[in-house]
Amino acid sequence: MPGQSVGAVKAQRARFNQPLQLRSGGILPAFDLVYETYGTLNAAGSNAILVCHALSGHHHVAGHYADQPDNVGWWDNIIGPGRPLDTDRFFIVGVNNLGGCHGSTGPSSANPATGKPWGADFPMIAVSDWVEAQARLADRLGIDSWAAVIGGSLGGMQALRWTISYPERIRHAIVIASAPKLSAQNIAFNDVARQAILTDPDFHGGHYYEHGTRPVRGLRLARMLGHITYLSDDQMGEKFGRELRNGSFSFDFDVEFEIESYLRYQGDKFAGHFDANTYLLMTKALDYFDPARLDDGDLNATMARTRAGFLVVSFSTDWRFTPARSREIVAALLANGRDVSYAEIGLNFGHDSFLMEDAHYHGVVAAYLGNIKT
Amino acid sequence: MPGQSVGAVKAQRARFNQPLQLRSGGILPAFDLVYETYGTLNAAGSNAILVCHALSGHHHVAGHYADQPDNVGWWDNIIGPGRPLDTDRFFIVGVNNLGGCHGSTGPSSANPATGKPWGADFPMIAVSDWVEAQARLADRLGIDSWAAVIGGSLGGMQALRWTISYPERIRHAIVIASAPKLSAQNIAFNDVARQAILTDPDFHGGHYYEHGTRPVRGLRLARMLGHITYLSDDQMGEKFGRELRNGSFSFDFDVEFEIESYLRYQGDKFAGHFDANTYLLMTKALDYFDPARLDDGDLNATMARTRAGFLVVSFSTDWRFTPARSREIVAALLANGRDVSYAEIGLNFGHDSFLMEDAHYHGVVAAYLGNIKT
Repeated sequence: MPGQSVGAVKAQRARFNQPLQLRSGGILPAFDLVYETYGTLNAAGSNAILVCHALSGHHHVAGHYADQPDNVGWWDNIIGPGRPLDTDRFFIVGVNNLGGCHGSTGPSSANPATGKPWGADFPMIAVSDWVEAQARLADRLGIDSWAAVIGGSLGGMQALRWTISYPERIRHAIVIASAPKLSAQNIAFNDVARQAILTDPDFHGGHYYEHGTRPVRGLRLARMLGHITYLSDDQMGEKFGRELRNGSFSFDFDVEFEIESYLRYQGDKFAGHFDANTYLLMTKALDYFDPARLDDGDLNATMARTRAGFLVVSFSTDWRFTPARSREIVAALLANGRDVSYAEIGLNFGHDSFLMEDAHYHGVVAAYLGNIKT
Repeated sequence: MPGQSVGAVKAQRARFNQPLQLRSGGILPAFDLVYETYGTLNAAGSNAILVCHALSGHHHVAGHYADQPDNVGWWDNIIGPGRPLDTDRFFIVGVNNLGGCHGSTGPSSANPATGKPWGADFPMIAVSDWVEAQARLADRLGIDSWAAVIGGSLGGMQALRWTISYPERIRHAIVIASAPKLSAQNIAFNDVARQAILTDPDFHGGHYYEHGTRPVRGLRLARMLGHITYLSDDQMGEKFGRELRNGSFSFDFDVEFEIESYLRYQGDKFAGHFDANTYLLMTKALDYFDPARLDDGDLNATMARTRAGFLVVSFSTDWRFTPARSREIVAALLANGRDVSYAEIGLNFGHDSFLMEDAHYHGVVAAYLGNIKT
């Protein structure tokens, strides 16, 4: 891997006591955001890049914790001295989004009205709410305008939303493996995942914290299903094929094929630590995302609101958000004469490609950021 | 719709007291098959067509029951006087497969060893076992050789297996929307569906009959997931798009999008009547299907065992069993100089296309059968 890791990092916490009006009509009276930063903010505050996370991500984007050397950030391969998000040049901010389960205010936080965990009473969150909360954090950090906001998948939607909500506060958006809105099939997969959680007897209407239970079965199913949509059919075939765990059929319902072993392992691992209410909120934020609703569905009109330069990246084998979905964004930007670069990368890892280290992919991001003025 | 329905039909039952040795090593001491027939078997017994059902199908393929005029067979549109499977010319047989839940011996039948329902003790069933049981039914009906065996999806796999197990007893195979074996992604979807059922607290290790429960939650999730894979992304988009049930976001976990309403309805309907143990068995039969295992994975060698003529049909928007999977079968047949016709039909209904009425699709089947000698 070219470049270096940022090394040991520390998470920080910011408290915001001004109420936040949410897209759903709800109000958060106050909230915490947990975040990390890498590199140094310049005197002009003009070299900051915000990294937005996807469904199951968080603020620990790069480096490791001094006391947990194996706890490496989820996008470490792209951040650090000499890496595409070069910390010798940029000040990088990672934040756990509202509704999350990694320290920022979310369903497992105490509801000030009751003193008990919010649970199912936590208000529904939209991508635009995350942008509002991130804007407060930018204020706090002294960042008037982001040099860039970058993200993959749901993270890309936040970058896109920044260009619409705050065109004057974002100079570049890097939107990777994303879409201007979910398709019916995308929503369908999300709904099956949610129904798995909502119908788990241990869910208790979202108030499982008070019952000493967790809807582990539902969350495990949701994650297993999610994983199928993150990988490409080709990659699954190459990696697992029809390989049998024990060489021959056992004719029972235990693991027979390697792919079953992989999926169940991923499901178990995720269900062991992630919060189900957060999973529900994140999938709903995905479903709701549709900024062109501002303009009666006319994405061209919505993109006319933007001022940023754009890099849009898609992956050939991503069937969750296909290259065609990225091209919808590109077309709407071009229709408005916006400055947009587009790359369709041939990578075999499906939707998860955006997390992978690849010379072509990372080269495109590095080249784009290399041309940014700070 | 051209042609006519076969009209009122009756289900019949055949008892087989000779033990059946199964692929899994298990033995069924005796079994029942429930079946229906349409048309008249000729004196030579040479005009019989077997229709094999897929995951959730059964023996009621065409017509209706005299006392249930709305209970129309699942493939009525292709069977009847003047229809592609023309009952003026052919004697059509539909059978509920072993392990089913529509009258043939299955997990809800009494285990003769205990007098209680088999439940989870019902032996695992392979496609080749269905063919063995169907061969017994053919003997009983006086059919030495099928004019054709036809099926879509898992039904197509049975037609294919017939050509390998009994090359001398099948003159034509019509294999629709099928594959020579499942891909890792296919198995992955099946495993998530099974895990939904197996981890449902009402499953009771498969002995739910005795607990007065049914794993309705798990079965519902399995069917919702299945439905996503049966439909094409395009069709879902055209049919449901992002249409909202109530015109605007309600910001809760009830149905918001029409696609959610459709999927939950399909899930509820299915879970209300289908047997979960049968669902498990059927998905395992899909996973196990891989006739080329007979020849160390060499499908060409396996197809060399066949003697039948073939019609292979695939659908452009089927992403469960893509046209490429059908072409694998065609290529292996051509490599052996077998007589094979192949049609790739442009239809927008995904995997479910095989159940649809379409002039081109039905025309291809009618033309092929029109050339069969009886």
